[in-house]
Amino acid sequence: MASLTNHVNGRGHEEDEPKFVLVTGGAGYIGSHVVLELLKDYRYVPVVVDNLDNSHPECLHRIEALSGKKVPFYPVDMMYKDGLREVFKKYNFSSAIHLAGLKAVGESVENPMKYYRVNIGIALNLVEVMKEFGVGKLLFSSSATVYGTPKYLPLDENHETGACSNPYGKTKFFIEEMLKDLSQVENDWNIVLLRYFNPIGAHESGEIGEDPNGIPANLMPFLTQVAVGKRKEAKVFGTDYATRDGTGLRDYIHVVDLAQGHVAALAKLEEKCGCRAYNLGTGKSVSVLEMIAAVEKASGKKIPYVLCHRREGDVGEMYCDTTKAETELKWKATRSLDQMCADSWNWQRKNPTGYKTA
Amino acid sequence: MASLTNHVNGRGHEEDEPKFVLVTGGAGYIGSHVVLELLKDYRYVPVVVDNLDNSHPECLHRIEALSGKKVPFYPVDMMYKDGLREVFKKYNFSSAIHLAGLKAVGESVENPMKYYRVNIGIALNLVEVMKEFGVGKLLFSSSATVYGTPKYLPLDENHETGACSNPYGKTKFFIEEMLKDLSQVENDWNIVLLRYFNPIGAHESGEIGEDPNGIPANLMPFLTQVAVGKRKEAKVFGTDYATRDGTGLRDYIHVVDLAQGHVAALAKLEEKCGCRAYNLGTGKSVSVLEMIAAVEKASGKKIPYVLCHRREGDVGEMYCDTTKAETELKWKATRSLDQMCADSWNWQRKNPTGYKTA
Repeated sequence: MASLTNHVNGRGHEEDEPKFVLVTGGAGYIGSHVVLELLKDYRYVPVVVDNLDNSHPECLHRIEALSGKKVPFYPVDMMYKDGLREVFKKYNFSSAIHLAGLKAVGESVENPMKYYRVNIGIALNLVEVMKEFGVGKLLFSSSATVYGTPKYLPLDENHETGACSNPYGKTKFFIEEMLKDLSQVENDWNIVLLRYFNPIGAHESGEIGEDPNGIPANLMPFLTQVAVGKRKEAKVFGTDYATRDGTGLRDYIHVVDLAQGHVAALAKLEEKCGCRAYNLGTGKSVSVLEMIAAVEKASGKKIPYVLCHRREGDVGEMYCDTTKAETELKWKATRSLDQMCADSWNWQRKNPTGYKTA
Repeated sequence: MASLTNHVNGRGHEEDEPKFVLVTGGAGYIGSHVVLELLKDYRYVPVVVDNLDNSHPECLHRIEALSGKKVPFYPVDMMYKDGLREVFKKYNFSSAIHLAGLKAVGESVENPMKYYRVNIGIALNLVEVMKEFGVGKLLFSSSATVYGTPKYLPLDENHETGACSNPYGKTKFFIEEMLKDLSQVENDWNIVLLRYFNPIGAHESGEIGEDPNGIPANLMPFLTQVAVGKRKEAKVFGTDYATRDGTGLRDYIHVVDLAQGHVAALAKLEEKCGCRAYNLGTGKSVSVLEMIAAVEKASGKKIPYVLCHRREGDVGEMYCDTTKAETELKWKATRSLDQMCADSWNWQRKNPTGYKTA
């Protein structure tokens, strides 16, 4: 089992000592930014579990270079509980941030059973191993997709959930439901469900960022790949939505803001919070055409695009009510759209082929 | 591996030869009646897989005595795929009827992770093994509980699903969703979701019937246990519903009618049906007080009862629209409430302690 840890003994820390936080999927796009934010915080020592299925060890090296700290890393496949147990034996975890999972919407439609098997399987394995080791604080990486087509806007956390249009989204919804049910009977557990809106951007250093396999399914990496010359033109799916310019509106959030939201939520787990959901977004919506213009401005490159029909399952507009996160987590996204685009572009420019350049 | 089979070679049957049908949970209450109906039909040879967690081998002996046929039986725990694979290697299955699963609502609230782990796990294992062996016809034992609180009555199959009030019901809903998604991409699969209303009654012989562990959670076995002197009094949960006598109304269906609905649905799988849901009920609703009176009539015993508060999650009235099953499956429940009560009582009277008398 690989380990970069410089923590010789991971057990038995005192009140004022830093707490070990398991970060599953900690080498991924969101995970790497969460780990970096945790490393900045004297209260926490992140320990990464990641099977590197859709991430690169280079990412962890860069986090170590940026932070000047070693990151304990275990290349564990969470489908097998014993590997997870070994990590829990080494560290007296205070809490877990569960980010690991399959996340490609299109692939989930093509191979739904894989998504149900893996995403539900690893969530159950994690919860069972946490229970075995008496760890009862969990942040779960959920998604705004659990809301389905909005019945009203902005989306607050009381909006109904479940009418998801694809298996990926359903796995998020199912796991939310499972954790809510768990929380009903495990009174000493505290669980926070973080419903991400649309994370974009990258760390300001340009050293870590989103590195999708193959053709990006999300707008931002597609746009920056066009800007950097890797792709010919962008596609705008849907021009006849009832929105200000006819294209889809989304609530984009800077990934560093999102990561800081995780740190804020960790503090919530120290309270007797039961199971609570929080939106992580900015509360503002940006159209596809506005985003193209913003990336053009940030990159100084012209981004050609073609207008296409709507994609099935897409909705016209989504943005969140941020009140609950602001009030209860004392957290608010602060980075502007221009900052998001500048950082996305900086990462793409410095790493035109992602971590594979290293 | 135990086997009672008299089919020396389970492989390679011709068009006019009987088809092997896997029945998971085939030793349970519903399963045993389904197996008996299949044994009466020259087109099918049922093969039972059951871990006997909540059923008795005696039940299978009685089915063999009633039918005069051997029932191939494998005591496989479906949480382990290899055991299932061994059965698929022995038989060239035409289809599978998936009835296995945990089904106690109250236990599911107390231990939700167990329900998610087991019910979702065995459904995924079955589907994956079916896929490995090229078997693409599946009947799934779902429940009216997927409808949640009725938005309208009678409940037809287009009623929205998902707002289930307990983990047991959610596992049924989640598995329905998984199978619908599977059906979207596996064009050669045919799947029928059977949404049971409230099965009661027993085979007219009184040789097989419902044999719940511990205190029955359902009304009928509770009433017959009071009638037979095993319990002191019945409990009526909720007397202030907006129903004709204030008590809850349910759509009770004779288990033999229900079993015959499975045989009718097997024929549907021979068509290119995609994934379809059917209600299995009578379309009529009976109140708790009416049921008590009917069991008193059938048994000739007085059934004392106490009035209690509503149980959380219970709804006032549920009954189904039977049109779709009648039209598309050419099946209709025919047995009366008096018949249901007479057969439930006959089973209870002959087997005051269930299969454990044998």
